[in-house]
Amino acid sequence: MADFDLIRSLKRDHGGKIVLLVLDGLGGIPLSAGGPTELEAARAPNLDRLATEGALGQTVPILPGVTPGSGPAHLSLFGYDPLKYVVGRGVLEAVGVGVSVKKGDVAARGNFCTIDAQGRITDRRAGRIPSDQAAPLTERLASIQLPGIRTEVKHVKEYRFAVVLRGEGLKGEIDDTDPQQTGVAPLPAKARAADSQKAAQLFNQWIAEANKLLAKEPIANSLTLRGFASDPALPPFPEIFGLRSACIAVYPMYRGLASLVGMDVLDFQGEEPQDEFGALARAWDAYDFFFIHIKKTDSRGEDGDFDAKTAVIEKLDQALPDLLALQPDVLAVTGDHSTPAKMKAHSWHPVPFLLWAPETIRSDDQTQFGERNCAQGNLGTFPAREAMTLLMAHANRLEKFGA
Amino acid sequence: MADFDLIRSLKRDHGGKIVLLVLDGLGGIPLSAGGPTELEAARAPNLDRLATEGALGQTVPILPGVTPGSGPAHLSLFGYDPLKYVVGRGVLEAVGVGVSVKKGDVAARGNFCTIDAQGRITDRRAGRIPSDQAAPLTERLASIQLPGIRTEVKHVKEYRFAVVLRGEGLKGEIDDTDPQQTGVAPLPAKARAADSQKAAQLFNQWIAEANKLLAKEPIANSLTLRGFASDPALPPFPEIFGLRSACIAVYPMYRGLASLVGMDVLDFQGEEPQDEFGALARAWDAYDFFFIHIKKTDSRGEDGDFDAKTAVIEKLDQALPDLLALQPDVLAVTGDHSTPAKMKAHSWHPVPFLLWAPETIRSDDQTQFGERNCAQGNLGTFPAREAMTLLMAHANRLEKFGA
Repeated sequence: MADFDLIRSLKRDHGGKIVLLVLDGLGGIPLSAGGPTELEAARAPNLDRLATEGALGQTVPILPGVTPGSGPAHLSLFGYDPLKYVVGRGVLEAVGVGVSVKKGDVAARGNFCTIDAQGRITDRRAGRIPSDQAAPLTERLASIQLPGIRTEVKHVKEYRFAVVLRGEGLKGEIDDTDPQQTGVAPLPAKARAADSQKAAQLFNQWIAEANKLLAKEPIANSLTLRGFASDPALPPFPEIFGLRSACIAVYPMYRGLASLVGMDVLDFQGEEPQDEFGALARAWDAYDFFFIHIKKTDSRGEDGDFDAKTAVIEKLDQALPDLLALQPDVLAVTGDHSTPAKMKAHSWHPVPFLLWAPETIRSDDQTQFGERNCAQGNLGTFPAREAMTLLMAHANRLEKFGA
Repeated sequence: MADFDLIRSLKRDHGGKIVLLVLDGLGGIPLSAGGPTELEAARAPNLDRLATEGALGQTVPILPGVTPGSGPAHLSLFGYDPLKYVVGRGVLEAVGVGVSVKKGDVAARGNFCTIDAQGRITDRRAGRIPSDQAAPLTERLASIQLPGIRTEVKHVKEYRFAVVLRGEGLKGEIDDTDPQQTGVAPLPAKARAADSQKAAQLFNQWIAEANKLLAKEPIANSLTLRGFASDPALPPFPEIFGLRSACIAVYPMYRGLASLVGMDVLDFQGEEPQDEFGALARAWDAYDFFFIHIKKTDSRGEDGDFDAKTAVIEKLDQALPDLLALQPDVLAVTGDHSTPAKMKAHSWHPVPFLLWAPETIRSDDQTQFGERNCAQGNLGTFPAREAMTLLMAHANRLEKFGA
């Protein structure tokens, strides 16, 4: 049975409330053999109580050994096959800075570069121009007007920006304009498919206007575009699972990903776990499913700061009573992937998964939320994309299969 | 490699004897967090000895979170992909009351109902007419004769019955006659495919005769039919695995399922485990594989009676020496799905699996047969449909794959 057909055929449109609490990059490794991971080192009495009452396991985001980016890691947790549902780079860059990408739009990643008098690239990243110099250049690019369509341009970081052309039926099967080497001119945007020729032509017009605007800029007098991509047309999460679904996240990337799968993205003040749980409390009655995203576990992992990552987990733990006071029927606490501080990067290691559902849980003997415990938990090791059916089941939202 | 091709290419037609002992709905959950499950609470010294000598694991019947009915749960244990090999509702209802469904037959589920003078349904279930009143009505329907074919009708429970038309090349792609609402007349049986028109026409004749017989009945003066289905044409289990295969089961549903996959269904007196093991002893020399089904673990789970389910397991344990005296080469003790007494229903929780095979087992450290132990056992968590290849291997019935 293909993909979501089974779950669509079994889902009930009533049942318990589900909270999926994602601590980005939660999984870790010890700094030295035999030592604790960040999660194991954290003093987290609330998480440990949930682990005691609930059941543990660990998820594989994509495949064993495969390190995911944020996009596929979250799609997998949301139940989508990350090898089948691919969100293009341009779309991820755009949603990462809060620019939406809808049906008919095409997004691309942009790099500022420098070219010589003959138009040949001399620096593909314009000397890694700092953000405070690149941001005003990006604002000038945002003033470009093209006939019949709208454009949106937003600075990302240093020499990088995102650009989206909004039209009707635009398609993004277009080759990069970055030749990946210096000493040659940027390439024109070239369509790989007939249905993408209109968008390629519009991008070439946009590039020509941009080059005029940048021509006199000493630090970045040209640009290249990469990762052209259309709206991925993901089947909507709320419809697949029959869940009124909300996203509570601080960072644009995760708000954008939730938006791409059709969740409502809630606005709120503040950036701390208690602020997110406050937003949860206010929206509690209006939704069946909440995706709550905590970013800083990943950020501190990428920094290589073991203790700071542990501290983020401890701070989350202190705020947890606000969430538990709402009495969710099903609560999962997990990550989208691992980001061990020791590696200062995302990794492929399985991700700790805690499932708490007082009415229907099969307890295991684990009494702490940590990597060793999760590997021993009774949920076993399972693909992240199977998590949603498990949560649906514990919320009494799935019919029996067959008689 | 598609489906059974691999196993067909590797199977040997000689080797050890395999017993698959299925305790229906075996898996459970604790009544409160941290407590024992039904199986963990049972005093079962023989099962614990097998667990100590053997290896443990847990199976996923369909997919994580998906609760199976008896049909797909057993097909999965027998090695069939339960999402690919689907047995129609009408066929399951028929085999559930001991009516076989062969190639060319079409089966349907029937409901007695009441209609008013204009033929409009007033109660879709005839006031949930009790079994002692419905059974005689069903017997009258069994007297209906149609030209050129045979019919079989059998009472199921309360207002429900099963009907099978036996002909040549009849197909069951037919819409329900139950309009799913009152105030309108039952629908005619309407074929969805050209090859099902003959069967639809015959069912309409049968319905017309049935309505004549029931017209004067005050409690149930009409009927509807649902879940039309043909023989599912499952590839035969004995041929796939090269096993002379027998079913020992008390309840018609499981005898019927075994029959659908081509096992011989053994007749015997009595309903207790020792009666089933007696039948096993008598047939021991004639078969390579035995599917033994114990129903009451599921029944007591559905009743919500934790202690009674535990007692069924203890009673089975006491009878086990009769089975072990036959010295099977491979014995698996497992369930088709979980039926936690706390939930009074089938559930999606993984199913305890005990594998005992003295010559080839890799023992683990587990010394008790229970859910926690199975989650820690060295067989891990695996799809139920992979169990048969494991049993085949331990019976020395599979060739090496590749050189």
